[in-house]
Formats: sequence, C-alpha cells, structure tokens
Amino acid sequence: MRMVDIIAKKRNGEALTEQEITFFIGGYMKENIPDYQVSALMMAIYYQGMTQEETAYLTKNIVASGDIIDLSPIEGHKVDKHSTGGVGDKTTFIVGPLVAAAGIPVAKMSGRGLGHTGGTIDKLESIPGFKVELTNQQFIDNVNKYKLSVVGQTGNLAPADKKLYALRDVTATVDSIPLIASSIMSKKIASGADSIVLDVKTGSGAFMKSFEDSKRLAKEMVTIGKQLDRQTIAVISDMNQPLGYEIGNANEVKEAVEVLQGKRVEDLRELAIELAAHMTLVAGVYQDYTEATQSLEKLIDNGEAFHCFKNLIKAQGGDIAVVEDLSKLPGSSYKVEVKSVQKGYIHEMEADEIGVAAMHLGAGRATKDDEINHGVGITLQKKIGDYVEQGDTLAILNSDEENVEHIIHIVKNAYGIKSEKPNNQKMIYEVIK
Amino acid sequence: MRMVDIIAKKRNGEALTEQEITFFIGGYMKENIPDYQVSALMMAIYYQGMTQEETAYLTKNIVASGDIIDLSPIEGHKVDKHSTGGVGDKTTFIVGPLVAAAGIPVAKMSGRGLGHTGGTIDKLESIPGFKVELTNQQFIDNVNKYKLSVVGQTGNLAPADKKLYALRDVTATVDSIPLIASSIMSKKIASGADSIVLDVKTGSGAFMKSFEDSKRLAKEMVTIGKQLDRQTIAVISDMNQPLGYEIGNANEVKEAVEVLQGKRVEDLRELAIELAAHMTLVAGVYQDYTEATQSLEKLIDNGEAFHCFKNLIKAQGGDIAVVEDLSKLPGSSYKVEVKSVQKGYIHEMEADEIGVAAMHLGAGRATKDDEINHGVGITLQKKIGDYVEQGDTLAILNSDEENVEHIIHIVKNAYGIKSEKPNNQKMIYEVIK
Repeated sequence: MRMVDIIAKKRNGEALTEQEITFFIGGYMKENIPDYQVSALMMAIYYQGMTQEETAYLTKNIVASGDIIDLSPIEGHKVDKHSTGGVGDKTTFIVGPLVAAAGIPVAKMSGRGLGHTGGTIDKLESIPGFKVELTNQQFIDNVNKYKLSVVGQTGNLAPADKKLYALRDVTATVDSIPLIASSIMSKKIASGADSIVLDVKTGSGAFMKSFEDSKRLAKEMVTIGKQLDRQTIAVISDMNQPLGYEIGNANEVKEAVEVLQGKRVEDLRELAIELAAHMTLVAGVYQDYTEATQSLEKLIDNGEAFHCFKNLIKAQGGDIAVVEDLSKLPGSSYKVEVKSVQKGYIHEMEADEIGVAAMHLGAGRATKDDEINHGVGITLQKKIGDYVEQGDTLAILNSDEENVEHIIHIVKNAYGIKSEKPNNQKMIYEVIK
Repeated sequence: MRMVDIIAKKRNGEALTEQEITFFIGGYMKENIPDYQVSALMMAIYYQGMTQEETAYLTKNIVASGDIIDLSPIEGHKVDKHSTGGVGDKTTFIVGPLVAAAGIPVAKMSGRGLGHTGGTIDKLESIPGFKVELTNQQFIDNVNKYKLSVVGQTGNLAPADKKLYALRDVTATVDSIPLIASSIMSKKIASGADSIVLDVKTGSGAFMKSFEDSKRLAKEMVTIGKQLDRQTIAVISDMNQPLGYEIGNANEVKEAVEVLQGKRVEDLRELAIELAAHMTLVAGVYQDYTEATQSLEKLIDNGEAFHCFKNLIKAQGGDIAVVEDLSKLPGSSYKVEVKSVQKGYIHEMEADEIGVAAMHLGAGRATKDDEINHGVGITLQKKIGDYVEQGDTLAILNSDEENVEHIIHIVKNAYGIKSEKPNNQKMIYEVIK
C-alpha cells in the first residue's frame, strides 16, 4: 500500500477502505508517512468529503492511537456532555450537578480555552483552591462518592487527533465537517463514557455559523457515535448571542451558581435542563422527556443540584465560602460601562466579538501560553430583543485596566440595533438522535 | 503574509497575487515554508486551477529561483524546441540539423529519459565518443560555428521546479494543467531561447491522453510564453502510436539518420518539417508556411541537414563512422519477432505500453538510477492502418536476453486489431499561437 495512491484515490472522489485509513493513521503516527502527504490528503478530504463509514474508520483509528480511559470502576451508566464551544457557556456547572443529583455518575474531563471561547477548567480555577488535577483513583473515587468530578484531560488521549489538528491548522484544512466530527468524537470516545450528549452550537458565536453546517456536523457526530457503539444525541442550540449574561471565569461561575440557587436566567436554565434531560433519558433514569424535565426543574428548585455542586468544590479542595458568598470570587479593579449610541431593539449580536473582547480583557487566551485573569470579564445588560434608549448601558466591562477604549469599541460594534422588534430567539433548534 | 492564508485563499477559489506567489516560492526555496503547506496548496490548485496571470507569475518565480542561461553570445534569433514526451520521438535529431541548415542557431539542452519515454541525451550517447557535457564556452562556440549543439542540462535551472515536482510526485498533485505548464515553461525560459516551439503530444503514448487536455496544456504554455515575452507556438501532434518505426536509443538515431538521408518515414518526416517550419518562421527566415516547408524539404533532400547532423557529431567527439555505416551503431544479441494471433487491420496501439516494453528490454529507466542499454529496442513492422494475417510479424524486439515472453506479451497486447479498416491517422491536430 502506498500513501500516494491513497491520496490519489480520495482526490478522485473515491471512498477509502478501513485498511487504507488504518495504514494512513498508523504510518503517520509511526512517522513513516510524512506531514506533506497527510496535508495533501486533508485538502483532498476538504473537497471530496468522506462517507459515514470512512469517518467512523478514521475516528476509530484516532481513538486507537492513544489511551482509552477505563471508567468501568465507576458504577452506573456514564454519560458525557460535550459542547462545540460558545461564548458564556457555563452549562457544565449546572448540567453536571443536576445530572449527578438525578443519580447519574458524571466523570468529566474538560479542556482549557483558546481564542474567543473559554474553557471549563479555567473557569473552575477561579474558585480558590480548586484542584483540576487528580489522580485517576481520586477521580474515580470522587465520582463514586459524589457522582461528579471535573478534571483536566489526563493521559495521552487521541494523540493522532492532536497531530492531525496541528497540521490542519496551518494548512487551511480545518473547515471540513467529517474531519471536525471525527476530531471531537475521537476525544469523547477515548474519554470512556457509555453515552454522549453533544451541545452543537449554531450562530455568530459558534464555530459553525450556519444552521445547515451545524446540523451536518451534529448528524456526522451522532452517526460516528452509533457506528462505534456509543449512544450519541446532539442538541443544536443557539449561539447567536452569549449564553446568559456573564462572560469570563469568575463571572461565569457566579452566574451558574445563581442558576443553581434558583435564579431565572432563562436561556441558560433552558439549555441546561434540555441537555440534562437527554443525559438522564439515555441513562434510563426517567421514563420520558416530560418526566425528565419536570424532575430536573425540581432538582434545581429544591437545592439538590446546588448541593452536588458544593460537593464537587469541597471534594476537589475548593473554597466553599466563595460560592456561598459570591462577592468573594475574584473581581476586577474597574467597571466600565458600554453605552448605546442609538435607540431601538437589539436585533443581533456578534457573539464571537464579545468573546474576543473578553479575551482582550484577559479572561481568555490569544495563544496557548497566555495567562488567564480570573476576575475580569463582561456582564451583559442587554441581549437580543431588549429595547434601549440612546445612552443606556449595553454591557459592563469588568477590567483591571482603566483605558479599554478599543474593547468598548468591539463590544459596541457587536450589537446590531434596529427600530423594529426582532422575532423571539429560539434556544433549542433541533435534537438529532 | 502567512502561507496558511494563501492556502485558504486558493482553497476558496480566489486568484493569488504576484506578491503572494513570490512569497510562496521564495519562502519554499529558503525553507521558511515547509513541504506540508506547499502540498496542501498544490492540492488546492489541483481542484481550483489558476488564472493565466497566476500561472505566469508562478512560472516567472520558478525561473527566478535558479540560473538563467545567457545565450546572448550566440548570434541570431535562438529558437528552442520542446516535446512533452512520447514514444519513438527522435524529431530533435532531424529538426535540429534541419533548422541549423536553414541558418538558425540551435542551442539545445536536453534531458534523460524516465519511464516509458526516452531521452535525447541517452539516445545521443549511443554514438560512441559523443560528449553531452561541454563547457558553456564550448557550447556557445559550437553553436556559433556549426549552428547546432545539443548538451545535457547544465547549471541550476529552475530548482523550484525540481523541488515542487518531487513533492507533487508523492502527493498525487502532478495532474494539474497549470502546474504542468508552468513546470515545462520555467525550464524552457531559463534555457535562454528567444522563441519556443512546443510539440505537445496527444494520445495513448502521451502524458495527455485526450485531445482536450492536450489543447488546454498547449494553450496554457503559449499564454505563459507570451506573458513572459517569449514567442511561443505549440503544435499538437499525434501520439496514438510511436513516431516512426524505431524505439530505443541506437534504434532511434538510426531512423533519424535515415530520414536525414532521404528515407520517407512519413509521420516522422512530416512532424519534423512542421516543427522546423514554425521555428524558421518565428525566426523570420522564410516569408510564409509554404515557402518554409518547401525549403525545408529541399534541405533534407539535398543533404544539407544531414551535413549539419554530421557536424554536430564531429564537434562533440562522436564517431562519425557509425552514422555513415549505421550497422556500426550498438546492436542487440537477439531479434525476437512478435507475431499477430489474428488477422485484420491495426486499429489502435497503446503507445505507452510499447514504451514500457522498450524500457523492460533495457532501452529506458524504470527508476532514475537504472542503466541504459543503447543497443536494445523495438522495431515496429506494422502500425495503425496496416493489414496483417495471423502469424505476420507485428514488431521485432532487439534484445540482449533470449527469454522475453513477458515483453512479447506486452507488445502483442498493445496492438488492437479489427476487421474494418480504420480512418487515416492524422499527424498534426492543431497549431496554437
């Protein structure tokens, strides 16, 4: 078998066999196949796509390139949740405790943030003392004891994905739905859960801006999951504006806690319950969707979910005082108001720009080596559908620098204001099973 | 400027600017841009093509990557001829002396053969003593004195092409017409001629099998030539069967000499005169096509072209005795007849397979390091349009091995025989100016 023939075959639009994909990934990892052949293949895949079978074979081989986490010492049906990334997305802090409160073990490995989206692990580190690195045994013990643990990625999961992604990133071959789908799914499958609920974001703050692309990605991932024997459900959710009102690290922990304490942040609560409902249904805890959502609403309202969140903090060495008194979370030196220069209805928001603004404040990373400032961020005052007069505050920048004119400019421009009222914004677009 | 943005731009179907192409070739040659980015770009070009301007910029930058031969010490208008490669193509040995006899200086750099096509330099080396390596001064002196010199490529011509071609060869990105056109033209332009006449082969023995592709390639090359101020003419000629009857090294020299001595090998003589006519017209030697062809016919028939060929041999140290007595050229130990198993008209020939058969006999190279056997080859007895009875000889293998069953098999299968007479085979399809 020769790599050049595999490239030519894909270039001509033919489907690769399992043997060919195994040869390619195996050879690439053993460094028998050079980057320059793989990048040519990636570009051919960009144009020609891959069949469902090819995408499943690719994912399977990427999973096999590294460690596979063994969650079998954890009792019960393990369900993982994964978001394709958005702005202000703190659902894990609500969904995790909520599902745990329903009795499902949540053994979650999360990542750090890069670019306009934040990372769960960074956000958790805004809680003083919280340890995101546990031994495997501690991780498993914590899940068995508290039904919930969230740690940074450990082990050598899907190294072929890391190698492929680094190459795709510099060869303009990232934007390929089958390649994105296999990249995400390989990491989730290697993480060892029995079932996977995917939160596929769509809109201005998402990686996939259009609904069609989001749906294609969701379908590809669900198909991969099925082909590799993981029950997979994808919820396509709105990311045309940040989720909730808080963006940043401490900011987002605070808002999540408020929701767990019963505060009605509608979009955030709705999405968290939707995702939790699918997780509990796939685990067989509830009979149907209605029972699931009603039960989960109750688990928030009666404080059981919040209790589980506090257990998580305590079990991983976090200072519980900060979630009992949110003013003790890291804060910022300045609060700078971003004011509207016109009146009318907020019609649209460039959510990715809001994310970039938060990154510039120090809440995120432009490059891998940047340090995070946990106390800075953005608190939105207005979202899509709200009416503003000229001079009304659109958002507050929680900043450690006084002069943030360039960031004010970004946030102001991220708001699109029109005289007519927009249609109501949908939160959940579609569920793909 | 970043290479990843250049790849993305081409991937999206946009045209690259001259600056971008200069950045890419310059960076690649300085090894600032790695192979894996270039192969991704090559694959994007495979799908998206290039505009005439892009192709010209690319060629210009490839030329600029190395030496450019200075032919200015040679008096007169220098015209180069280049063939895209075929089987049995010995036209250079006729066209060179013929054009020289008409008074045009021919300073020709030629290559060696690889795969199913032979190389001019290998063929000349079948003449004992013939030196294909001259100093630049000797080369120029010989052209000034005899109007003709043929040498192997000297200097570091178009190194970017060598580097790009080696990469394309292993990444399935060879088959792109703008890339092929710029590859050929960069080497021709770096060779320093004022004008270029291209012999673009079409058919079963050509790199381009279809007339449409051959015409596209011809047009691309003529356009590049014009944009880079070289008058360029492309003759699209038939390669559905080998040219003439002889394939091999000494074999082809022998047949060329016979044509120079007046033998009527119709296809070969017709093509040689056609190419020579365009070369003389572009150099302004004759008024029109009719005058050109008639004058060139005379220069063969009166022996002046043959005289020029003998001058070439002598000037480069070759043994003139072998062209005065062709039986003194290297020969083979065995002559093996390939016989027809059926009767009928020769309808088609897989010319590339005949070339492969000659290569297997030792006349060509499967890989760069193979040695050439100058005395072996194939002498065709029948070509398209000929009638054969069962048992008639189709071709004779001039072999140094007795057992050549597998080669007999290849040659036999390369003949397509049908009961009806085929249409007459055209030699010249079209001339692109």
